[in-house]
Amino acid sequence: MGKCRNHPERETSYLCSKHNVYMCEECLKCNDPELYCKFRSACPIWFMERRKARWEREKHDKERIKKYKIIFKPENKEIEAPEGSTLLDAAREADIHINASCNGKGSCGKCKLIIDSGNIKSEPTSLLSTREKEKNYVLACQTEIFGDVMVRIPDETIERKLKVAGMGQEVTSRFKGLVKDIQPMLKEIPLELEPPTLDDSVSDLDRLKRGLKKTGCDTANMTADIKVIRELSAAMRDENWKVTASVIRRNGTRNIVSVTPGDGKATSLGLAIDVGTTTIVVYLVDMSDGSIIAATSGHNRQAACGDDVINRIVCAEKDGVAKLSRMALATINNLISEALAAVSADKNQIKNIVISGNTTMTHLLLKIEPKYIRREPYIPTVSEFPILKAGNIGIKANPIAAVFIMPDPASYVGGDIVSGLLYAGFHRNDPTTLFIDVGTNGEIVLGNRDWLMTASCSAGPAFEGGGIRWGMRAEEGAIDKISIDPETYEPTFSTVGDVAPRGICGSGMIDLISEMMLTGIIGRNGKFKIDSSHPRMKLDGEDLAYILAFAEQTPMEEEIVFTEIDIHSLILSKGAVYAGFMVLLQQAGLDFSTIDQILISGGFGQYLNINKAITIGLLPDIDRNKFKYLGNSSIGGAYMALLSDDYRNEAHKISNNMTYIDFSSNSQFMDEFTSALFLPHTDLNAFPSVQVKLNS
Amino acid sequence: MGKCRNHPERETSYLCSKHNVYMCEECLKCNDPELYCKFRSACPIWFMERRKARWEREKHDKERIKKYKIIFKPENKEIEAPEGSTLLDAAREADIHINASCNGKGSCGKCKLIIDSGNIKSEPTSLLSTREKEKNYVLACQTEIFGDVMVRIPDETIERKLKVAGMGQEVTSRFKGLVKDIQPMLKEIPLELEPPTLDDSVSDLDRLKRGLKKTGCDTANMTADIKVIRELSAAMRDENWKVTASVIRRNGTRNIVSVTPGDGKATSLGLAIDVGTTTIVVYLVDMSDGSIIAATSGHNRQAACGDDVINRIVCAEKDGVAKLSRMALATINNLISEALAAVSADKNQIKNIVISGNTTMTHLLLKIEPKYIRREPYIPTVSEFPILKAGNIGIKANPIAAVFIMPDPASYVGGDIVSGLLYAGFHRNDPTTLFIDVGTNGEIVLGNRDWLMTASCSAGPAFEGGGIRWGMRAEEGAIDKISIDPETYEPTFSTVGDVAPRGICGSGMIDLISEMMLTGIIGRNGKFKIDSSHPRMKLDGEDLAYILAFAEQTPMEEEIVFTEIDIHSLILSKGAVYAGFMVLLQQAGLDFSTIDQILISGGFGQYLNINKAITIGLLPDIDRNKFKYLGNSSIGGAYMALLSDDYRNEAHKISNNMTYIDFSSNSQFMDEFTSALFLPHTDLNAFPSVQVKLNS
Repeated sequence: MGKCRNHPERETSYLCSKHNVYMCEECLKCNDPELYCKFRSACPIWFMERRKARWEREKHDKERIKKYKIIFKPENKEIEAPEGSTLLDAAREADIHINASCNGKGSCGKCKLIIDSGNIKSEPTSLLSTREKEKNYVLACQTEIFGDVMVRIPDETIERKLKVAGMGQEVTSRFKGLVKDIQPMLKEIPLELEPPTLDDSVSDLDRLKRGLKKTGCDTANMTADIKVIRELSAAMRDENWKVTASVIRRNGTRNIVSVTPGDGKATSLGLAIDVGTTTIVVYLVDMSDGSIIAATSGHNRQAACGDDVINRIVCAEKDGVAKLSRMALATINNLISEALAAVSADKNQIKNIVISGNTTMTHLLLKIEPKYIRREPYIPTVSEFPILKAGNIGIKANPIAAVFIMPDPASYVGGDIVSGLLYAGFHRNDPTTLFIDVGTNGEIVLGNRDWLMTASCSAGPAFEGGGIRWGMRAEEGAIDKISIDPETYEPTFSTVGDVAPRGICGSGMIDLISEMMLTGIIGRNGKFKIDSSHPRMKLDGEDLAYILAFAEQTPMEEEIVFTEIDIHSLILSKGAVYAGFMVLLQQAGLDFSTIDQILISGGFGQYLNINKAITIGLLPDIDRNKFKYLGNSSIGGAYMALLSDDYRNEAHKISNNMTYIDFSSNSQFMDEFTSALFLPHTDLNAFPSVQVKLNS
Repeated sequence: MGKCRNHPERETSYLCSKHNVYMCEECLKCNDPELYCKFRSACPIWFMERRKARWEREKHDKERIKKYKIIFKPENKEIEAPEGSTLLDAAREADIHINASCNGKGSCGKCKLIIDSGNIKSEPTSLLSTREKEKNYVLACQTEIFGDVMVRIPDETIERKLKVAGMGQEVTSRFKGLVKDIQPMLKEIPLELEPPTLDDSVSDLDRLKRGLKKTGCDTANMTADIKVIRELSAAMRDENWKVTASVIRRNGTRNIVSVTPGDGKATSLGLAIDVGTTTIVVYLVDMSDGSIIAATSGHNRQAACGDDVINRIVCAEKDGVAKLSRMALATINNLISEALAAVSADKNQIKNIVISGNTTMTHLLLKIEPKYIRREPYIPTVSEFPILKAGNIGIKANPIAAVFIMPDPASYVGGDIVSGLLYAGFHRNDPTTLFIDVGTNGEIVLGNRDWLMTASCSAGPAFEGGGIRWGMRAEEGAIDKISIDPETYEPTFSTVGDVAPRGICGSGMIDLISEMMLTGIIGRNGKFKIDSSHPRMKLDGEDLAYILAFAEQTPMEEEIVFTEIDIHSLILSKGAVYAGFMVLLQQAGLDFSTIDQILISGGFGQYLNINKAITIGLLPDIDRNKFKYLGNSSIGGAYMALLSDDYRNEAHKISNNMTYIDFSSNSQFMDEFTSALFLPHTDLNAFPSVQVKLNS
């Protein structure tokens, strides 16, 4: 506990882990940047930590000895947990994947469990309804264990299958022809060698190199691993001097990483892997023709440590980076297994891998210390990675498989963006392009073939459901499209998977705010214009809220509401993105009129209604034809780099040529951000089409 | 057991492991190459295996369960050994280093032990005297265990300190000025880096590379190990951006292998290691000025598996190459510890290592399959080795230390010869030079700056004491110089260390044969001209023998004799070397008169009396001033390569430029060999100075 920086008379447990200042709940909700934290909006590591619970837990740690049995239903997974630890800790230990967006701070209200029996102690929370409390719901992160516990995981807590952009057939056709000349990193070269004689008694390795040279391979700077040398004589003789050599080229040298008897008959496979903070996507590729033979995706298990990269880094600092690496690897390796099973292939066929991810994801995956990423001046350990071996980093493939990691140009513009650019390709052409990828962070790239500028702004997790009362990802049951009757204020919505609604995802929120503003439910300041007496309105605690779905419409038998605080969170997020656009343009001496196209990347872009995004001021009010959806561009670039040396080199060039603009100490950004905390913007003239709608 | 190839009526247990033919004992002793084995003299893998004992042992293996306690005195080392295993096996298991030249074939008679108590079963042997048998002497390799045994290691069985060429001060002065410009493989570069700021937020690795570039380091193709990257951020911040980077250059790329906080204050050390079949020599070098600060040497523990490389390979095939590697590593690491202790240095200071050894030694050390070295057409697995890391191959140094292995041009001309040439340097000059290194094999190099030819002939282990009744290495107690009174046939001799005689070493044997021939004790055919009635003569079994020392003169209270068979063995050896000279000269279109110098390398060369070596026909009868001793040239070259990139490159050039001549199928060699099986030679005109002596 500490004293609020703005109200020294108040004790608070919220600590900004960057600036190391305490803030009370009022300050947290306040949107005056001077009062709150003047860098909050531009701070890429905006992160408040609730200290109290942790302190208490740490105190307990020292005295604790007793262990209790925890059973998780419906799977009946059993685990031992020490007294005083939380149910969330126990679930993580049991490898049970439950929603925990805020990483156990008790602020997201997602980690709901139902206590069947047992001695527990729960912190009071306003994030559970009276009805839920009656049903013995608790928040896993706020519930400590003081005896054997039997607990049930309710339906809404289990993570569901994501709708992932472009799988299977669709993908194959989309990517067809992207790469003409296939050049894998690891090349398998079948050889028929001349057996040695007394007159030709060069060493086995020299004989092999001679054979490789005949196939056109440059053997001048070629080396072999000692392991390969140790097994070489047997491998060369086992099938009468027929061998297959696997050669990796890197940095101008060639390295023989394996020699096996006979001609490698099995198809050589490759993996393109997009390690997202939320979702991991894996494409299994036939390296002979570049066709995608399987595609899988799943939740990054690291989500148990929080929604955003900052929470992940905090978790790595606490529990060690190896734990976070294991979590990501578990997800990746499961997806690989699924993909291999789908086509009855063997992991040893996988010889080439490309991984793209943001800077934190790649650092965590490779067990590289991430902690300076979240500390000013935000320094990643590494930007350009060496070519690695799958066996050395724990990826379930042939241990010798060559792994290319997309370079990370900056701490908050990572390899996923480089990969996205590779796929988008505008850096090869004349048109001036604005490229955006909105997730937890909003990464923006501006440029063309002559120059590239990039920046990252803290969009916050709102668009992905984080910090929003009923926010969720675009999973089954998420409300993704909404219109509101201007007379009755009755909403009409659709959900992902056309099932009963369980929450609201990013595109749904944009629709909702746009509709609420145009129908006059809220004003341009984001405040409700009608009161709780309207049947669609209610008080949620102290906050006014719009009822999107009544309890009887939902499987949880709970109302899905959208509060004034939710609206405020979304305005902060969209304001940060828009301010980012403005500053980047100004730095380049441009304005929106000079932009030839806007490319929207990321899973979010896929479901976005451009018109409504413009209405709320997330996107600029320009010609709709200039907008283009890219889908998951990160996996697209990874696929291209998997197949082509030229694209791998291009990725390095992109990473090196991007000028990174830091917003965190940029006063211009602050001004633009403050101006953007209105719907659609304080300057309505910048949004003529919205002006027309509002006046109509 | 099998039938003798020349006497099908005889059963024999001796099998030629190359040609897979059996031979009886008579044939083994016969020196008619047509009868015996026509390739024996030129066969680099001359090797007879006694099958019976092994078969019986293998049969036992299957039934064996019981284990017994064996205690070795005087050290009281205790070990459990299975029933039926030999005392030699037990001694090896206990890591007790005893002489076993023939690798347990029961033919050398060196592995003598004294049984104090216990149930054993010994094969009958003629290699122990009646007096020894009375004292409970047994041969360890011929004695099987059938109960707890208490055994004593007699003085003569323990290996003693070798006289090793040029240690300490002497070496430092000898090598002074050999290398002017010191260029280690692994370079330690201290850096003071600029701390990062928001305006200068490149990754830690990029900052490090920038710092390295400023010191003049080429960072274009520079990579870092993932392990280094994982620890980089902490290392760079620990001492406020002062770090020491260790960089290895290889094949045009540079590899950052370590980054440690602060400036590496400790002196960087290097090791030059000569891994001889018999002896291992280690020089500890201060890399800052190239001075040799400690030098140690010791017996290669692999000697427990036999004297020569073929025995070692056979042992590796039987017990696995890892065992042989461990044995060599144990010796090397002990020597390193000794050297470090002498100067109070730490193993982690050792960052650069060069190893030279023959092809079998380097293969075994690195656990590379050696078996095709001893099989026609004699193919080594590898000639040019990659730069290795000490930690990966088990050498007790800093795990990241860079290890350069001298390239092995052929199976029987190895890195020790390349290293020797590097040191001798005649390949840089005009004079036509004959370079010889006589050990178990005799390696010969002929050439000058324009060309190099090389060959290997099977000198056999005679010069190192192998296969000779009282032969031994140049250890303490070895008779190394002999003259014989032409009237009384009484010998006068000196021993290594000036102690009572324990046996006779190579230089002593050459003296002895030379003296015996000049005094008329033996004829030019190597047969005795006087009979057993002379007080200096006796019958040793069926063989006539000259008594070099009477029992009362020796610590073993045994006569030291030299038999007709011993003489024959030595004539075979010297004949092979001389035939090698002749054929190599003929292939080059030269003769001895065109040779400008003869360089004699190896520990053996050191004690050689040139005149006497010419008298027996080992060396050609040319101007004595043309002969030059090099001492241990292999360690000299290793030292040079340790300090200089240029010399490392030169080593590869030497290895690639040598033309290897294979004698094993060369009929010209056979003719020359047969002609050389006389003292000094069938053609006495080739030895005018010997002719004069014989006629005087």
